[in-house]
Amino acid sequence: MSATVLSAKPLLKERYEQLAVQVQKLVQKPILSVIVLGDEPASRFYVQNVEKQGTKTGIIVQVHRLPIETTQTDLLQLIKRMNLDPGVNGIMLQKPFPSHIDEDEIVMAIEPSKDVDGFHPINLGNIMLEKDGLVPCTPAAVLEMMDFYGIHPHGKHVVIIGRSNIVGKPLANLLLQKKEIGNATVTVCHSQTRNMTEITRQADILIVAIGKPEFVTGDMLKYGSIVLDVGINEVLDHEGKPHYVGDVDYNSCVEIASAITPVPGGVGSVTTYRLLRNTFQAKESQEKTK
Amino acid sequence: MSATVLSAKPLLKERYEQLAVQVQKLVQKPILSVIVLGDEPASRFYVQNVEKQGTKTGIIVQVHRLPIETTQTDLLQLIKRMNLDPGVNGIMLQKPFPSHIDEDEIVMAIEPSKDVDGFHPINLGNIMLEKDGLVPCTPAAVLEMMDFYGIHPHGKHVVIIGRSNIVGKPLANLLLQKKEIGNATVTVCHSQTRNMTEITRQADILIVAIGKPEFVTGDMLKYGSIVLDVGINEVLDHEGKPHYVGDVDYNSCVEIASAITPVPGGVGSVTTYRLLRNTFQAKESQEKTK
Repeated sequence: MSATVLSAKPLLKERYEQLAVQVQKLVQKPILSVIVLGDEPASRFYVQNVEKQGTKTGIIVQVHRLPIETTQTDLLQLIKRMNLDPGVNGIMLQKPFPSHIDEDEIVMAIEPSKDVDGFHPINLGNIMLEKDGLVPCTPAAVLEMMDFYGIHPHGKHVVIIGRSNIVGKPLANLLLQKKEIGNATVTVCHSQTRNMTEITRQADILIVAIGKPEFVTGDMLKYGSIVLDVGINEVLDHEGKPHYVGDVDYNSCVEIASAITPVPGGVGSVTTYRLLRNTFQAKESQEKTK
Repeated sequence: MSATVLSAKPLLKERYEQLAVQVQKLVQKPILSVIVLGDEPASRFYVQNVEKQGTKTGIIVQVHRLPIETTQTDLLQLIKRMNLDPGVNGIMLQKPFPSHIDEDEIVMAIEPSKDVDGFHPINLGNIMLEKDGLVPCTPAAVLEMMDFYGIHPHGKHVVIIGRSNIVGKPLANLLLQKKEIGNATVTVCHSQTRNMTEITRQADILIVAIGKPEFVTGDMLKYGSIVLDVGINEVLDHEGKPHYVGDVDYNSCVEIASAITPVPGGVGSVTTYRLLRNTFQAKESQEKTK
């Protein structure tokens, strides 16, 4: 057996088209403000992609590229202005931030209804309470994948490897919700888990977000399980050239799993779509509460 | 083997004494405002106990008993006044509320720094982010029990039965935190879980909060596991007299577990202490941000 490859490509084609149709109906287009400090190449590449996809979808992406030495006070003032500006629907912080910036204070300063990253505690709390709100892009991308490929976690055992604030924990809470893509029995494993393989072998659906290249190998899977790889790690091949691998050892897992996401071109590719989708959703709910 | 009984009694003696000493040092005593609509006997009993323990500890408990027909608007106005009143450190809503009250809106109206129930999304989000905040009383009571009896979940498999907003979900997030009482591998089971017994038999620590009388039986346990029973259900004995049982069938489980909480006199008894502890903590952090 070789697993079905759950590529992001057909999902993105369909979902971007749907989003573009919804955006087209709006007189005022949604506006996403992206704040970038400094000019790191990887970050530049990501932001360029957001701009490109925004343009295709009809969402206006305004990039605020600030000098790396921008102070905490100046950054907070910019965010306050954006919070008050009705023309800004979403505020996204492009990481990493330089070390003199207190990220936590910056995230807390963003008006929760414009927090398209979904990192504000009120948006995370709303996930626990099953209330509407802005869901962080990566967990939302995992749910999009499940929805698009008809993967129903209801009553199944979903094992998540990784307990980060931006992926593992919100994802666990989302999959516990009483929703169609929800109702799963959820286990969260992490660096301190003693019997990792014993647990991952029970997973009907295994979601890996531990940030370690090719951490999950085929012998850790139950035969026929579904593997969703959230990782993206730059490694060097035997010629010293950089390339990207996930947190899953694709070659050994593809023989055991019934379905698997590739890296690149898997879950990670869906996050930009979710960022733009969140911007659209933010605008909609801002208008309702006007 | 018969399990060690994890009674709340010695814990409460020690912790109330510690709290009373801390409160004694304060010039202004912490004030907890309890809002009650109507006059239901079970609720009256609970509130009387809060008042009694408050008096013993030095925390002032002000009960606002309002008529059952109090409107949403009047209730919101009372909360707004309490939010602004520096003399009120904690606001607790005694449930159940009559059906004409929109509980959700009421909870959202409480100033998060006075939300000693810990039900506001920002307090729940802070648990996910491992930030300081007010933790709901029942999950906090479970952690108190673990701490007092030296139950260290680090690296162990903790299985939680129940995914409520006020117990199961916050507890799962707490036990994932990188703290001494944390770092567990956590599984959450619930009504939609297919292979419940298969999973509960793997638990080193089993926490039951499903609201079904005597749901967990001895055959569902791993030999030597620790069982924490959050449930409290009124049932009738063979003479038709009401008495209380937990979500765990104590008699069959006490033979298999290495340690077990009783009902009554277990986890449930610690929640009132945690409510008063939260009130003290709320006052402390309110003073820091003055």
